[in-house]
Amino acid sequence: MIKAGIVGGTGYTGVELLRLLVTHPAVELAVITSRGEKGVQVSQLFPNLRGRVDLAFVEPDDTVLKSCDVVFFATPNGTAMKSASALLEAGVKIIDLAADFRLRRAEEWEHWYGMPHACPELLAEAVYGLPEVNREAIRTARLVANPGCYPTAVQLGFLPLLEAGVIDRQSLIADAKSGVSGAGRKAEVGILLCEAGDNFKAYGVPGHRHLPEIRQGLITAAANPVELVFVPHLTPMIRGIHATLYATLTDPGADLQALFERRYANEPFVDVLPPKSHPETRSVRGANQCRLAVHRPQNGKTVVVLSVIDNLVKGAAGQAVQNMNLMFGLPETAGLEGIALLP
Amino acid sequence: MIKAGIVGGTGYTGVELLRLLVTHPAVELAVITSRGEKGVQVSQLFPNLRGRVDLAFVEPDDTVLKSCDVVFFATPNGTAMKSASALLEAGVKIIDLAADFRLRRAEEWEHWYGMPHACPELLAEAVYGLPEVNREAIRTARLVANPGCYPTAVQLGFLPLLEAGVIDRQSLIADAKSGVSGAGRKAEVGILLCEAGDNFKAYGVPGHRHLPEIRQGLITAAANPVELVFVPHLTPMIRGIHATLYATLTDPGADLQALFERRYANEPFVDVLPPKSHPETRSVRGANQCRLAVHRPQNGKTVVVLSVIDNLVKGAAGQAVQNMNLMFGLPETAGLEGIALLP
Amino acid sequence: MIKAGIVGGTGYTGVELLRLLVTHPAVELAVITSRGEKGVQVSQLFPNLRGRVDLAFVEPDDTVLKSCDVVFFATPNGTAMKSASALLEAGVKIIDLAADFRLRRAEEWEHWYGMPHACPELLAEAVYGLPEVNREAIRTARLVANPGCYPTAVQLGFLPLLEAGVIDRQSLIADAKSGVSGAGRKAEVGILLCEAGDNFKAYGVPGHRHLPEIRQGLITAAANPVELVFVPHLTPMIRGIHATLYATLTDPGADLQALFERRYANEPFVDVLPPKSHPETRSVRGANQCRLAVHRPQNGKTVVVLSVIDNLVKGAAGQAVQNMNLMFGLPETAGLEGIALLP
Amino acid sequence: MIKAGIVGGTGYTGVELLRLLVTHPAVELAVITSRGEKGVQVSQLFPNLRGRVDLAFVEPDDTVLKSCDVVFFATPNGTAMKSASALLEAGVKIIDLAADFRLRRAEEWEHWYGMPHACPELLAEAVYGLPEVNREAIRTARLVANPGCYPTAVQLGFLPLLEAGVIDRQSLIADAKSGVSGAGRKAEVGILLCEAGDNFKAYGVPGHRHLPEIRQGLITAAANPVELVFVPHLTPMIRGIHATLYATLTDPGADLQALFERRYANEPFVDVLPPKSHPETRSVRGANQCRLAVHRPQNGKTVVVLSVIDNLVKGAAGQAVQNMNLMFGLPETAGLEGIALLP
Repeated sequence: MIKAGIVGGTGYTGVELLRLLVTHPAVELAVITSRGEKGVQVSQLFPNLRGRVDLAFVEPDDTVLKSCDVVFFATPNGTAMKSASALLEAGVKIIDLAADFRLRRAEEWEHWYGMPHACPELLAEAVYGLPEVNREAIRTARLVANPGCYPTAVQLGFLPLLEAGVIDRQSLIADAKSGVSGAGRKAEVGILLCEAGDNFKAYGVPGHRHLPEIRQGLITAAANPVELVFVPHLTPMIRGIHATLYATLTDPGADLQALFERRYANEPFVDVLPPKSHPETRSVRGANQCRLAVHRPQNGKTVVVLSVIDNLVKGAAGQAVQNMNLMFGLPETAGLEGIALLP
Repeated sequence: MIKAGIVGGTGYTGVELLRLLVTHPAVELAVITSRGEKGVQVSQLFPNLRGRVDLAFVEPDDTVLKSCDVVFFATPNGTAMKSASALLEAGVKIIDLAADFRLRRAEEWEHWYGMPHACPELLAEAVYGLPEVNREAIRTARLVANPGCYPTAVQLGFLPLLEAGVIDRQSLIADAKSGVSGAGRKAEVGILLCEAGDNFKAYGVPGHRHLPEIRQGLITAAANPVELVFVPHLTPMIRGIHATLYATLTDPGADLQALFERRYANEPFVDVLPPKSHPETRSVRGANQCRLAVHRPQNGKTVVVLSVIDNLVKGAAGQAVQNMNLMFGLPETAGLEGIALLP
Repeated sequence: MIKAGIVGGTGYTGVELLRLLVTHPAVELAVITSRGEKGVQVSQLFPNLRGRVDLAFVEPDDTVLKSCDVVFFATPNGTAMKSASALLEAGVKIIDLAADFRLRRAEEWEHWYGMPHACPELLAEAVYGLPEVNREAIRTARLVANPGCYPTAVQLGFLPLLEAGVIDRQSLIADAKSGVSGAGRKAEVGILLCEAGDNFKAYGVPGHRHLPEIRQGLITAAANPVELVFVPHLTPMIRGIHATLYATLTDPGADLQALFERRYANEPFVDVLPPKSHPETRSVRGANQCRLAVHRPQNGKTVVVLSVIDNLVKGAAGQAVQNMNLMFGLPETAGLEGIALLP
Repeated sequence: MIKAGIVGGTGYTGVELLRLLVTHPAVELAVITSRGEKGVQVSQLFPNLRGRVDLAFVEPDDTVLKSCDVVFFATPNGTAMKSASALLEAGVKIIDLAADFRLRRAEEWEHWYGMPHACPELLAEAVYGLPEVNREAIRTARLVANPGCYPTAVQLGFLPLLEAGVIDRQSLIADAKSGVSGAGRKAEVGILLCEAGDNFKAYGVPGHRHLPEIRQGLITAAANPVELVFVPHLTPMIRGIHATLYATLTDPGADLQALFERRYANEPFVDVLPPKSHPETRSVRGANQCRLAVHRPQNGKTVVVLSVIDNLVKGAAGQAVQNMNLMFGLPETAGLEGIALLP
C-alpha cells in the first residue's frame, strides 16, 4: 500500500482528495494536516466521510510527512514550495495541487503570484501533471505540479488543433465558466450563496493567474508563440467548468472530428463526443473525465470547441490521483472509476 | 454474476440504478427496457454513462426478462403488478421501486392510487424492503416492494421511539422536505427550474400517497394504532430528503441518544450523529446512507428527530441494490460503498 | 418629505431598505452610514442602485442623524441600543431592524443575546412593530422594534387561532424554512454557495434567538401561557421564509378558513388563500406580503398553517417602511405596492 | 388611459408584462387571452398577482382586441402574423414579443422558423423595437417587432464599436449565457430543475434563430457586411443574460471607454460601467436595464465587451413597455422605474 499524506486538507480539493483516496485500492491514508483545524476529526468538518475516515487533522510535522511515500499539497499558493526540498530529499514524492510549480520561469510566477519563489531551483525538475501531454515524464517524476482547473479544460480543448497546426495561433479565445467551488472554501462575501447564486458574471478580465499557465502549455503544444484571450466567469453552480474555445481555422479542409478522436483515442479520461454534441458539466460531476465536442458553425472559418470537466476532479483531486497512479506504476484508472452523479 | 434487468430505465431512479449496478462487483446488466426510448443508447440519454454502459433501450420482452435472475421495475405505479406473476413463475426475483406492492391491503392501494390492483394475491407475499426492519424476510423473498423515499426517511426516524414505546402514538408529525428529483423526470411545468427554483412550498397537505405507506410501517413498528400528520414540501435542490419529525414524549426519562445509537448499532447504512447535531442532505448526496439526529428542545416534552437521505439512493435505487444483495446472499454493502459527494 | 437616515446599510436589509425608500413618494434619503465602507459609493457596493442612489457611506455622525425625521438601524444586534436615547431626545423617530428592543424583559434579552442591554429603560416604551397586532400603538410610537423574519411569519400564522382560542396553547410547533439571505451578508463559510447550495439542514434546534420573541408575541395574542417548539431550517434559495405551523384543535367545529379570512379582512399585506392552497415563497419575492393557507389534514385534530413571506421585505425592510408609514400618518401602503417578481 | 390587451399571457413574458402594466401609471389592462387557460383567473396561475389583477384568461376575440389601443403578443412564433393585419386595420397598435416581424426578409424568416410567413407584406412596415437604434421610427410605428433577448444584449454591446468602425467586422464572436426562463414556460424535460440545475452547457452551436436577427442588426449598424459566431449557453439561474463579446480592434488608438459612454450618454436604460468593471446579471434582475463594460485585456488587439440584461425585462416585456411608451408619446421611462432586486 502507498502511504499518502495530505497537507492542508480543509478545502474543497482536500475533501475531494479524501473521497478518492479512501476508496483507492492501493492507498493508505497516513496523515492529514491543518494548522487551523488541528485536533478536529476530519469527519466532523466533512460529514460525508463519517465512518470512512478516522483521522483527525494534525499540525504539519516533517517527521510524519517524511515517512509517507507521497504527499499531496492541497494548500494555498506559496506553501508547498517551502517544504518541497526537504521532503524530496527524504525520498517522498510530491504532488502539489496549488500553483507553486506550474510555471517554468520563476520571474513569471513571482509576477502573477506576488511573492518571491522559495525554491526556483526545483522548477526545472517539476513535471507539469497533465497526463495527456506529459505521461512518460510523470511516471518518473519526483515532483508533479498538478494543473489548474481552467488550464486543464482549456488545454485539452486546444491541444489537438495546435499540435496539428490547423489554426491561427495568434487569435485564440477561451471563454470559460466555472462553478463556485473553484474559488475554494473561504469566508469571502463574493462567493456567498446570496451573492453568487442566481447570478452570472465575468471576473478577472484584465488578467487572471491561469492565463500564463494556459499560455505556457499552449506554446509547448504548438512549439510556437501563441496569443490567447482568457475570460473566466462565475456561474451559479457548485462544481464544473465549461470552456468555450474559439480559433480561426487556417486549414479549412481539416477533418476536425477525426482529429480530436484520433488525438484522444487511447485516453481513459478524455471523451470526444459525436458531431453536433453539447457536453454538459453534470455529465462529469464527481468523475475524472473531460468531455469535448468540436463545432464549425455555419461551416465558417471559426472552430468552436466545448470542453467540460469537474473542476475538483479532473481539474484538481482526480488528476492528482491520476498522476499518483502514474508515478507509482499503478493502473492509471485505479480509484478513478466512479461514475458522474446525474442528476 | 447475477443477471439483472431493468424495466423502465429512463427516469431518475433508472439512471441511478444503472450508476450503481455498473460498478457492482457481482452484477451483470443484461437488459434495460423503455417503450418510449427504444433503440436509443442509454449513454445518449444519460451522458454520465458514456463508456460505461453499452446497452440500448429495448421494448419490454418477457423472454429476455425471464432469463434474468432479478428484474428491477423503475416504472410508474401500476406497471410492475402487470408483469410480476409471470416473472415470478419463471423464477425471476423482482424488486419494484414503484408503489405496487407497498401496501398490504388492496383496497387501500386502490383508494390512494386510483386504479384497480392487477394482482392483489401477491400482496401477502411481497416483502416491504426496509432492511432495517425486514432483513430476514428480504433474504428469502421473491418479490420486494422497495419503500418510497419519504417513507424511508420518516420510518427510520420514528422507529426507535415507537419500538421502545416512549412517545405518544396519537400525535406524530412528519414535516418532510424533498429535492425536486423526487418528482421524477417528467415534462411537467411545476418542476421546471423556473418554477421550483429559488422557491419553497408545501404540497399535498390534504393527502399524499406516502401517508398510508408510512402509517402502515409505523403501526407495525408500534404494534399499535398510530396517528400521523404528514406534510411534504418541495425544496429547490436536486437530491435529498430532510424529514423533521415531532413526537410527544411519554417517558420523559428516556435516554433518546442511547436509544437511537443502540437501535442502529449494527446497521451499515444508518448513522446516528452525536447529540446536538444537524444532519445535512449533502452529507448523503449519492450515498446509500441515512443520517439521524435526535433532539429534545428546551428539555421539553417534544422530541425532534432530524433524518436525511438521498431520495434516489437510500430512498430508491441504493435501497433496491441493498435488497438485491440480501436476496442473493451477497454482502449487504456490495456496490454501495461510494462516498457522498460534498460539496 | 420625510428625511430618513440609515445606520449600517451594507447588509441585505440595508440594500432592501434603500430599494424601497428610493422609490417611496414621501421620503428623502438623507444619510447612510457604515464604518467599514465609509467613502464608498452605495451604488458601488450595490450596483442595482446605480443611477438611483447618489450617496456614499459615511461614518455614523450624531449631528447628521439628529437632523433626520426618522433613523432606521439596519445594524447588528447591540448597536441601536447605544444611540437610541440621544436620537429620541433630539426628536428623531427610530425604527430598529435588529433585535435590541424586541423583548420586553431585559434579562431575557441579555440571556439570549449574550450582552448587557444598554438602555433597558426604553424597553417599556418601544413598540413591537407588527402592524397587524399593534397598528394603533405604532402610529404614536417614537421607537419601533421591527420584528424578526421568522417571528413575523410564525405570529401571523398562529394569531387567528390563538386569539380565537380554538387550539391547545401547550403544544405549538413551528417548523420554519428560510432562504440564506436571512443569515445576512457576512463572510462566513456556512453560507457560501458551495456549503448552503443544493443542501438542506435544520439549525439551532437546541435554541434560536427568535424563540423568545415568537413566544412573547404568541403569549400576548393568547393572553395566556403558550408552549412552542421552533425548528428553523436553511433552504438553498436567496429570499423567502416558509413556516409550517402545527397546533391541536380544541374546538373541532371551528370554521378555520372563515376565521383566517375574517381576521385579516382589512389587512393590506396579509393574504389568506382559498382552501387547499399551498402558498409559494416566490409569490411574495420582493413584495411586502404574507400569504397564508390553513389546512386540517384528513379532517383530524391537527391544524396546519402555511405562511410565507420574503424575509427581507415583510420580514425586515418592507415591514420597517410599513411602520414608518404608520408613524408619519402616511397611507400604510405608500412605497410598498411593488409586485412580487415571478419567476 | 391606454387600453392594453395581451394575447397569450400564460408564459413568462406574459406574467412579466402583467407585472409591469399593472403598476404603469397610464395603462388600463383590458383583456388577456389564452386558449389553454380560458376561464382561469390570472392570479391563480400567477399568485404574485393576487389582489392586483382581477382578470381571467379569455379566448382570443377580435372584437375585444379591436377595442384596445395597443395589443401585445406574448405568443409563440407564428401567432401574431395571423392577426396583425386585421388589428392594424382596426387602428390598434401592435407590439409583438415573438419573432414574427423581426427579420426583414420573409425567406430568411421562413428558413429559420420553418413555416410560411402569413403576412410578408407587413415586414417592410414593421419597426424593429430597439429604441437605442430606432427611437424615432418607433414613435410613429403601428407595428413594432420587439427584439429577442440575446439580440438585445449582443447588439447593445457591439453597436458603439460597429458604428465607430473601430473593429474588424469579419470576426465577431458573441458568447452568450442565458438563465432558463429564456426557454419559456413549457413542459419540457430539458429545462426541469433536475436537468438544468447545477449544470452548464452550450446549445444550438450549429445554428440558433437569434443569429440572423443579431446579424441583421449588426449589418445595419455597420452599414456593411458582418460575420458573427454566436454561441448560446444555458446557465442554472432563472433570469438574466450575460453576453461576452469579442472583436478585433482595427483602430488600436480608440478610446473605447469614452466611445461607449458617449454612445449611451442619453440612454435611460443603458448603463456603461467604469473601466475594469464586471457587470452582474443580478444588478438588472427585474429591471429594464442593460449594463455594459468594455475591456481590452493585456492591452492587446482584442476588445471584450460584457453586456447584461434581464431577459424578461430589457430582453422582452420591459422593452415592450418602453416601445409602447414611445408609440404613445409617454415619458420613455413610465412604469419602468423599478429597481433591480438584489440579492
